[in-house]
Amino acid sequence: MNIRTTLLLPLLLCCCLTAKAEEGSRLWLRQATGAEAQVTAPRGGATLQTATHELREAWKGQPITLRLKKDKFLGSEGFRITPLADRLELTAATERGLLYGAYHLLRLQESNGGHAFTPQQEITEVPAYDLRILNHWDNIDGTVERGYAGSSLWDWESLPEQGSDRYEAYARANASIGINGTVLNNVNASPRILSRSYIEKVKALADVFRPYGLRVYLSVNFASPMALDSLPTADPADKAVARWWKNKVKEIYRLIPDFGGFLVKANSEGQPGPCDYGRTHAEGANMLADALAPHGGIVMWRAFVYSPGDADRAKQAYIEFKPLDGKFRKNVIVQVKNGPVDFQPREPYSPLFGAMQQTPLMAELQITQEYLGHANHVAYLAPMWKEFFQYVPPTSLRAIAGVSNIGNSPNWCGHPLAQSNWYAFGRLAWNPALSAEAIADEWLVQTFRSLERQETSGVDEQAAYKAMKQILMESREAVVNYMMPLGLHHLFAWGHHYGPEPWCDIPGARPDWMPSYYHKADKEGIGFDRSSRGSNAVAQYPDSLARLLDDAYSCPEQFLLWFHHLPWNHPMQSGNSLWEELCRHYSLGVREVRKFQQLWDRARPYIDEERFLLVQSLLKIQVRDAVWWKDACLLYFQELSGLPFPDEMERPIHTLPQLKQVKLGISNYECPDAELLDSQR
Amino acid sequence: MNIRTTLLLPLLLCCCLTAKAEEGSRLWLRQATGAEAQVTAPRGGATLQTATHELREAWKGQPITLRLKKDKFLGSEGFRITPLADRLELTAATERGLLYGAYHLLRLQESNGGHAFTPQQEITEVPAYDLRILNHWDNIDGTVERGYAGSSLWDWESLPEQGSDRYEAYARANASIGINGTVLNNVNASPRILSRSYIEKVKALADVFRPYGLRVYLSVNFASPMALDSLPTADPADKAVARWWKNKVKEIYRLIPDFGGFLVKANSEGQPGPCDYGRTHAEGANMLADALAPHGGIVMWRAFVYSPGDADRAKQAYIEFKPLDGKFRKNVIVQVKNGPVDFQPREPYSPLFGAMQQTPLMAELQITQEYLGHANHVAYLAPMWKEFFQYVPPTSLRAIAGVSNIGNSPNWCGHPLAQSNWYAFGRLAWNPALSAEAIADEWLVQTFRSLERQETSGVDEQAAYKAMKQILMESREAVVNYMMPLGLHHLFAWGHHYGPEPWCDIPGARPDWMPSYYHKADKEGIGFDRSSRGSNAVAQYPDSLARLLDDAYSCPEQFLLWFHHLPWNHPMQSGNSLWEELCRHYSLGVREVRKFQQLWDRARPYIDEERFLLVQSLLKIQVRDAVWWKDACLLYFQELSGLPFPDEMERPIHTLPQLKQVKLGISNYECPDAELLDSQR
Repeated sequence: MNIRTTLLLPLLLCCCLTAKAEEGSRLWLRQATGAEAQVTAPRGGATLQTATHELREAWKGQPITLRLKKDKFLGSEGFRITPLADRLELTAATERGLLYGAYHLLRLQESNGGHAFTPQQEITEVPAYDLRILNHWDNIDGTVERGYAGSSLWDWESLPEQGSDRYEAYARANASIGINGTVLNNVNASPRILSRSYIEKVKALADVFRPYGLRVYLSVNFASPMALDSLPTADPADKAVARWWKNKVKEIYRLIPDFGGFLVKANSEGQPGPCDYGRTHAEGANMLADALAPHGGIVMWRAFVYSPGDADRAKQAYIEFKPLDGKFRKNVIVQVKNGPVDFQPREPYSPLFGAMQQTPLMAELQITQEYLGHANHVAYLAPMWKEFFQYVPPTSLRAIAGVSNIGNSPNWCGHPLAQSNWYAFGRLAWNPALSAEAIADEWLVQTFRSLERQETSGVDEQAAYKAMKQILMESREAVVNYMMPLGLHHLFAWGHHYGPEPWCDIPGARPDWMPSYYHKADKEGIGFDRSSRGSNAVAQYPDSLARLLDDAYSCPEQFLLWFHHLPWNHPMQSGNSLWEELCRHYSLGVREVRKFQQLWDRARPYIDEERFLLVQSLLKIQVRDAVWWKDACLLYFQELSGLPFPDEMERPIHTLPQLKQVKLGISNYECPDAELLDSQR
Repeated sequence: MNIRTTLLLPLLLCCCLTAKAEEGSRLWLRQATGAEAQVTAPRGGATLQTATHELREAWKGQPITLRLKKDKFLGSEGFRITPLADRLELTAATERGLLYGAYHLLRLQESNGGHAFTPQQEITEVPAYDLRILNHWDNIDGTVERGYAGSSLWDWESLPEQGSDRYEAYARANASIGINGTVLNNVNASPRILSRSYIEKVKALADVFRPYGLRVYLSVNFASPMALDSLPTADPADKAVARWWKNKVKEIYRLIPDFGGFLVKANSEGQPGPCDYGRTHAEGANMLADALAPHGGIVMWRAFVYSPGDADRAKQAYIEFKPLDGKFRKNVIVQVKNGPVDFQPREPYSPLFGAMQQTPLMAELQITQEYLGHANHVAYLAPMWKEFFQYVPPTSLRAIAGVSNIGNSPNWCGHPLAQSNWYAFGRLAWNPALSAEAIADEWLVQTFRSLERQETSGVDEQAAYKAMKQILMESREAVVNYMMPLGLHHLFAWGHHYGPEPWCDIPGARPDWMPSYYHKADKEGIGFDRSSRGSNAVAQYPDSLARLLDDAYSCPEQFLLWFHHLPWNHPMQSGNSLWEELCRHYSLGVREVRKFQQLWDRARPYIDEERFLLVQSLLKIQVRDAVWWKDACLLYFQELSGLPFPDEMERPIHTLPQLKQVKLGISNYECPDAELLDSQR
């Protein structure tokens, strides 16, 4: 039985007794309506009307005057809130700026417990990036690659004729946190997305999104001219190909005048690209950029490339892209994943950041939890992204993209707490200086505050919020601990990237898709030697950092096995051996999730039963998964190390032969439910 | 896959590398052979020859002289070991006494690390009871009711023609610990056991057992005259019936002159008995006793009776048997289970003990772990039996019976550590003053000492044995904690008595076979009120104890919910509420079994891999079962109490709806394997 189905019965009972049903559909936008606030605004377009409407419905404080006023400092999306004697003034250069300002005011009010709020001083906000973009890996057949919250939000079948309330709700949610662009489809793109009928569907969505300042982008298949119009080639140097793209872009802009541009995955994991014709990534990107430039569109060209034959996958993007620095058109942005491999629970930053001084770069972060327990595990990712910003200065980036965790499930993201990652991505894309803690505070109170209880219950309620925040703040490190501590990476089961398979060995499969390629564990030790004595990936980093990483005694231990192959008895800073420290981290991960269960229970009196019970159930799955991970990895590594478990370590409850038989049999867009997991382990 | 099968592969490898294969078949009798000791003995029968042979083969110390000498103090089974200048003298009044003395010497030698041993002073041993009897619940179809170690040891099909090495090994093992009687078949007896052909089979076994001082007994069906010879009645007042039994007994004694007698379960759980004809248990027992008396045979008449209609099952045996005190023949012993219900992990003693001053009583203990995790859980039962002796003075009993845990599995008892219960039963039946610790020490060293390593490894090896002993000593209390702490009882799943089903409700079934009959949990509280305000079962105990038990504030907390129905917030001695204390006990049980895993690992360097790995695997099952029990009971009781879990308590990983769906589908002679358990939870 699906865990979520199992819960329905008690839920129905509980909801009658306590709070109004809360299935999570309202996200963090649960403010009361009907405030009838006094809002004065100039005449304007749909965006201005939206801003006015939102404030009128929910603002409880002083009267507000909205003003449109040119202001270089505020740019096209910034805003200023000025407290005057008897009212507030919200100023921006554009209607979008006013909209973001309106949502900011409401956020401040909600963070104040939903009570009327008056800023004590002027507030000025300007986004750090002009482009704050969600990437949807949605396929036109309705599936979502690495999506664990149901099917695609876009009902391509019924578009453009039929709309959906959720299209607007989606745009509004994005606007409320400052996201201003969305790539609608998977980077493994079907050429059909550029067919006339699909462009019309895209236009329908763009029209819904426009009042919320949300522009649409598309992922395109580089071989589209061949697939759609039978051109003999997709060679970017071929004039007919370039012409095809120019015409296709014109066709798009005729219908969608503010179309954002293209996102391209080329010559990566089987996708077509310019290299198929002996051209460089730059030549491919530039051809598309030339088609888009007259219309103000951009190309986001992904640097996620690696070939099965070459040495050390972690080095390949750098090797391939670094020589192209300065060769891209101005309206091309190279989109680089945060780490050099692939969205692992922890990676060092990709050395391409900082290495391409002549090329605009954007970071691709992953909001969906492909490698982080899907929609079953709580893993608040703001701390991970902040960690990235510690190494890659936000100012060195042109833009930010995040791979969405949104689907058509009623609560949008599957796990009620996973909404926090959509929220945090938007907030950090607006202002990367915000702390993960502050974002957690904002999100929690907006998302869970009881709408029935007018007054807070004081100290106890504060303790409950503190507990929920502790779960969020510690969650990602817990996942790292029970999945892949100390720099381990990619120990995942074949295909679905959910459970552990450090032993995985598929005859004939790409070696760089096998866990053993990454952990390289043997009788002597464990880890990938990327030091100067190994693959020398460290040399791709700036000298000072490279020296630090190159020495196993100065390399931060959280990246140790990423950069070093070390003997099992390697002494760690704690005084433990590497083996003991591995055991300690896995055990700690399990204990941390058990603690999350205890902490979560503290929230019960203050939040709705519906989401309380769902998260409580999901935490059960997470604990069992954590034990599964710990047992699988430690039992497997123990076979190699031959070392006993530390005396005080909690012992495995599974056997390795049993665990090796676990095959979840799920596709890469499914999250396993409790029943499937239980029946296997 | 069966957990034991799963292990075979690694075992085969390990055994080659380390110790000689040890599947446990040699039990605690692993002494080296070929000692060629100097043993002088008089001429004698088979038993004396066995004693001489055992010593010659294994004794490493001084020469020994065996002497048969009448000695009132030693009785028919005692012995004396006297150290002389150049030799030891072993004296007894009978050959059996010499045999027990021989095994005692060898036990002392093995407890001395297998090294030559000279007693420093005279040793005199006399058994506390003349009758030290195993009850086999073996059916003639080869199954064993509540047996979890394979099929019956008795191959009725091939008897009497074919023997088996195991028949003699079985008799030898019993002799080595002083057991001198065995009831071969189930108390739910097939009448066919008394047919001529089966008596011949029984004779064949009796002939094998005789040299080891082991007499056979049979469980009989009270309606045997009707079933076997079509008598119209089994009324004990009917002369034809009495004659039938006299003749049947004669027939038995012609073939088995030292036959021990009958064990009878009558008018209990559907078995026929004298009450079917308006006669008392005494009248039924006496009729059989009269038939056996001329041959020196006895009747063991069970007091395990309860009817579905009457109030409080725990009171019924007392109500029915107490009035019969003094009405039984001299060769009848009433056999009473240790507790008033049925072999629960913890019960107060049955009030029948001490209540029938004119009637010989024997205690029926359960060695097989019907309610204690079957052959999957480690539960060393000597502490439970010692607890019984704290309340029931050993001298108040005439004899001791133990329901066997022996089957045809290679290691005899299923779980390698379950052999300790067979061993401890025998040792306590010989001398109930022995401590559970001392018996554990004896058994561990004899059972696990490495035969390859001549010298012990000193301190570390001592620590390993200490760890194993800690597991044994704490194991039964751990089971109580994670299954049924604080006096809870009979929360078992319908039928197989393995897993938890506190919610069990089978429409139309006997209410006293339902857990709710015993826990009586509701919104207000939990427990069976057997105080003077309830069923008044306390009144069946001696006054001083009854007063203690009657008051919830003086009743020992380990029996609290056996005697009292109390509110969830009842204050406990710890300062916790009853609810919190329940949660604490269940959690403690889980932690204890996890600790057993850690402790067991310490033994690895010093014992054979084969048994090490099997116990290691079984402990994994036990941990998962402990969590299952904890989750099932606490989640179910929480639905009633409505109380939150204590903040620091480890939270459930199962959901109640899931757990309610678990149906193991095993018969009452099967132990569920890991695969079955895993597929269900």
